[in-house]
Amino acid sequence: MRFKFPLVALGLEVGMIVLFGLFVQYETEQNTLQQLNITKPTDTGRFLELYPLFQDVHVMVFVGIGFLMTFLKKYSFSGVGINLLIAALGLQWGTIVQGVLHSYGQTIHIGVENMIHADFSTVTVLISFGAVLGKTSPVQMLIMTIVEIAVFACNEYLVDEIFQASDTGASMTIHAFGAYFGLAVAGILYRSGLRKGHQNQESVYHSDVFAMIGTLFLWTFWPSFNSAIAEAGDKQYRAIVNTYLSLAACVLVTYAISSLLEKRGKLSMVHIKNATLAGGVAVGTCADMEIQPQSSMMIGSIAGIVSVFGYKFLTPFFATKLRIQDTCGIHNLHGLPGVVGGLAGIAAVGMGMSNTTTMAMQAAALGSSIGTALVGGLITGLILKIPIWGQPSDENCYDDSVYWEVPKKRDYDSHFHDHGELNPEV
Amino acid sequence: MRFKFPLVALGLEVGMIVLFGLFVQYETEQNTLQQLNITKPTDTGRFLELYPLFQDVHVMVFVGIGFLMTFLKKYSFSGVGINLLIAALGLQWGTIVQGVLHSYGQTIHIGVENMIHADFSTVTVLISFGAVLGKTSPVQMLIMTIVEIAVFACNEYLVDEIFQASDTGASMTIHAFGAYFGLAVAGILYRSGLRKGHQNQESVYHSDVFAMIGTLFLWTFWPSFNSAIAEAGDKQYRAIVNTYLSLAACVLVTYAISSLLEKRGKLSMVHIKNATLAGGVAVGTCADMEIQPQSSMMIGSIAGIVSVFGYKFLTPFFATKLRIQDTCGIHNLHGLPGVVGGLAGIAAVGMGMSNTTTMAMQAAALGSSIGTALVGGLITGLILKIPIWGQPSDENCYDDSVYWEVPKKRDYDSHFHDHGELNPEV
Amino acid sequence: MRFKFPLVALGLEVGMIVLFGLFVQYETEQNTLQQLNITKPTDTGRFLELYPLFQDVHVMVFVGIGFLMTFLKKYSFSGVGINLLIAALGLQWGTIVQGVLHSYGQTIHIGVENMIHADFSTVTVLISFGAVLGKTSPVQMLIMTIVEIAVFACNEYLVDEIFQASDTGASMTIHAFGAYFGLAVAGILYRSGLRKGHQNQESVYHSDVFAMIGTLFLWTFWPSFNSAIAEAGDKQYRAIVNTYLSLAACVLVTYAISSLLEKRGKLSMVHIKNATLAGGVAVGTCADMEIQPQSSMMIGSIAGIVSVFGYKFLTPFFATKLRIQDTCGIHNLHGLPGVVGGLAGIAAVGMGMSNTTTMAMQAAALGSSIGTALVGGLITGLILKIPIWGQPSDENCYDDSVYWEVPKKRDYDSHFHDHGELNPEV
Repeated sequence: MRFKFPLVALGLEVGMIVLFGLFVQYETEQNTLQQLNITKPTDTGRFLELYPLFQDVHVMVFVGIGFLMTFLKKYSFSGVGINLLIAALGLQWGTIVQGVLHSYGQTIHIGVENMIHADFSTVTVLISFGAVLGKTSPVQMLIMTIVEIAVFACNEYLVDEIFQASDTGASMTIHAFGAYFGLAVAGILYRSGLRKGHQNQESVYHSDVFAMIGTLFLWTFWPSFNSAIAEAGDKQYRAIVNTYLSLAACVLVTYAISSLLEKRGKLSMVHIKNATLAGGVAVGTCADMEIQPQSSMMIGSIAGIVSVFGYKFLTPFFATKLRIQDTCGIHNLHGLPGVVGGLAGIAAVGMGMSNTTTMAMQAAALGSSIGTALVGGLITGLILKIPIWGQPSDENCYDDSVYWEVPKKRDYDSHFHDHGELNPEV
Repeated sequence: MRFKFPLVALGLEVGMIVLFGLFVQYETEQNTLQQLNITKPTDTGRFLELYPLFQDVHVMVFVGIGFLMTFLKKYSFSGVGINLLIAALGLQWGTIVQGVLHSYGQTIHIGVENMIHADFSTVTVLISFGAVLGKTSPVQMLIMTIVEIAVFACNEYLVDEIFQASDTGASMTIHAFGAYFGLAVAGILYRSGLRKGHQNQESVYHSDVFAMIGTLFLWTFWPSFNSAIAEAGDKQYRAIVNTYLSLAACVLVTYAISSLLEKRGKLSMVHIKNATLAGGVAVGTCADMEIQPQSSMMIGSIAGIVSVFGYKFLTPFFATKLRIQDTCGIHNLHGLPGVVGGLAGIAAVGMGMSNTTTMAMQAAALGSSIGTALVGGLITGLILKIPIWGQPSDENCYDDSVYWEVPKKRDYDSHFHDHGELNPEV
Repeated sequence: MRFKFPLVALGLEVGMIVLFGLFVQYETEQNTLQQLNITKPTDTGRFLELYPLFQDVHVMVFVGIGFLMTFLKKYSFSGVGINLLIAALGLQWGTIVQGVLHSYGQTIHIGVENMIHADFSTVTVLISFGAVLGKTSPVQMLIMTIVEIAVFACNEYLVDEIFQASDTGASMTIHAFGAYFGLAVAGILYRSGLRKGHQNQESVYHSDVFAMIGTLFLWTFWPSFNSAIAEAGDKQYRAIVNTYLSLAACVLVTYAISSLLEKRGKLSMVHIKNATLAGGVAVGTCADMEIQPQSSMMIGSIAGIVSVFGYKFLTPFFATKLRIQDTCGIHNLHGLPGVVGGLAGIAAVGMGMSNTTTMAMQAAALGSSIGTALVGGLITGLILKIPIWGQPSDENCYDDSVYWEVPKKRDYDSHFHDHGELNPEV
């Protein structure tokens, strides 16, 4: 066991370097122009235009999702740290897999759009990671990264190139996919020993505040996520505006429903941290369409309602009846809102000038995303269930100290800053 | 009481959706070009140029101000959470109110500039929120958001269209306005039961570090705030440079004065967290003018001095003599530096090629901003004083657990991470 | 002592204002075009193109490095607060010193590139600050800022203008320089009283999570750091891609080696927080060259290995044998990876179409960076050793309360949130 993790990690990195050596080259200026959908010639600095959007997505992946996962009282190191590990591997592997598929085996010219797509592909794994947070080993997560991104890239190719469906903000291909993949894995990895919960599976005051760092960066930059790969011009603009409005509406509704469902009208931090983001998920598929601002706000509102109800009623139901323990409640933040997004996309396409074939293709995209996710997740779960990956025992779940050197003492000794005045010398 | 908050929040969101349905449409390419003050034809992706500035402002509103308000030891959830609630409502309402005023009742074409203005309008409420932090209910804050943004938009229209005054970085229309509005509300809501302070009205070590997240994002992105709506080209460039330099100078002076005024020459976190930002406030009005770099630095220095003195001497004076309890000291961060900014604007205009009429108009803008704020704040305070909004009792002030489900246990149990070594199975 | 810090700080700010009055003016449009290396005429808003890159660097300096330094359990205020103080002084002084050198005494026209260079110059000091963190007074840091940036600017001038060496991401001129300067200072300021360590020189659980905020913003925005002053077009693009890939590879290798070297295969937060960034440092010098993606990844991998080994073996060796106490381990994050970067630059230039002269110049640049740093650091150390700067006693090291008003009580009293349910009135 001692050398399993380092050898797997090193081996994967060596593999990535070899694959990059074989398949990846720099972008040339000509390619950049084509890639950005720019028809008329323009100046060479043009790729800088998308770079701020890429950086927003980059912050979402590493800071946003990373800190959202720090909420458990003894599992913050793993939350933010394994997130970094997964994402760093995922973006390399995602570049290769997506690049090979979309370039039909030709050389991949890595540009800003590839980097955005690579970051996107990591998001699917990070979503799934949320379902099994605290119950898996780093080696398991490396394996899941490799398998899930491969499956994701195939489904995304199907949706994009075969069905030619719209999914700009990736409600279906990332959010629904990542959620149902993760739920399938969590189902296979079900631990009956945790069916009554675990004393470590709770937050403390400050870990919830740390998680809000993640929430707010995700919330703020979500318009960039949904617009980063949209067609330049009006579509990209609409993707920004629709997401901005959907999220704003989602916040008010989330607060309202949370207060409505909780005892004595109080707000639940679990809802606020998560469900306020559901509006960004749900508006993704039709973000670049002319759905009108008020429709974005309605989609955001519905997403908030669905998400809070999910946290309140579905997560306990899943854990007890379906034997799926979903640590972060990804079904409520990504699964259901992703399905809402897929359905909204079908409806939006239907109300546009499209014919029923287009609607059917959107529906096929949604079905394919959920279907491949479930199959891929089941297979991955079976691989991860093999008892050789250094899984934590039930008792040691949700505890950093299995995989990390952790400061031994609790936060402060009782005399912290309680001594007399200190003074500079002299 | 149980249903008051959810019903108000839901009702407001429904209202917003209806208003957007009636008044708001997407921007068209032609409108975008006009809105960005671009005279010659250009490519369609141009609105992306302002988008990074918008995102900086967006981060300031949600992460910056949000985390600045987490400093109270038991009120961090509300600090960052109610900030999010106010801002999400405010940006929708601000889009409507400002849009209707500036488009003279015509359809509002929502573009990046509208989004920046909408975010700006929320800042006034978030500033005022700082004065009453810990002593009000979520319902009260929703009401304040609606009233304050309406008054703000009227004053901003007055300053902009009637007085035609300069106020690029909004020292007067946002900072002074938000501060005096909030102080008026706090004055009306005075609680004699808290005149000797409250045991919860203090920070702990880590809550101060959380607040520094807010400070640093505000400090870093303030050049974007002051330049986001400046005229493209030289003016926008100067707004960035002047703000950058004013803030840098403000930091050194703040540290110096804090050490000078505190016992034994120590630094006060209250000063460092807040007064270092005063340079951004005070340079706002004349940020885009040719005041020369050294003048920006002088304005920043003066703002730092004024702000630290305010925290040290004025806030206690306000609380005891004027019966205005200003939780975050917004008068010192936004009020006084905003007035400094307004005065600097008058002086800068006077030293330019302008005549006395222009100076008078700047002075009128300052007067109008403070005047409408005080009147609006008094009226709002009277509305909020009606004892039906679920206000916390004096005893329960500055405590999240009135409105939030809060982890019951304190941060860590005494055996935290103190058990023997944990190991992965197998 | 009481007035030393405020007077030094105020005096320095007055000096800066005078110097800006004498030497600095606004950029004009014509200058901006030249500065951005744009050959053909373009529109006036063009400087906005570099502004997002500047803002990324700005966040790295103030949030990134600031929070990376909050890891000590009782020294978070100083970590993030003195970082802000140094950087605010440094960017003003850096503008002057670099501007005077590069404009040959002519007026400095401050533009976005100056602001990026000014932020860069502060980074050298902030790196050196890491070596002496917890053992120095604010006055000492102000002095170090002034001296170090002057020496840095001279070396940078030498490297840039005389040797004409490549160092886009500043592996040599910033990272190696800042590290060896800091180590020299730390060597002179060696405290034998701390040779067995200090009870405060450790992190607690949450302070490590705070530090991860810094790590992640540095990691995310490092491609902007390495590309911000690259030549527009292909070089800037390559600087972004190479850094992005180097960092990703570095993460996997860092995790692997950390697990390999630690007891029982666990991960060390010290390694994860720091060594994951070494890939950004090491790829700096040749970031804009056509080294091919896989080479970036190899450089990142080597940097990760070197850095983790450094933390594990060199830092203790330095402290005990060389009498250099390096608080943050800057030698492992900036020193060694900076040297790796310099060597990679020599190799990359050698493999290109360059002759041996170019390689020699690269080598000269590396030698000059380390040499001037050591000499400058030794002299600075001797100045700082004079016992009049309010140094903390050995006992009071790593403790904020020497220079800050700190909340007296520990994080939470034992009854925190443990009372009965609170309710809104009415």
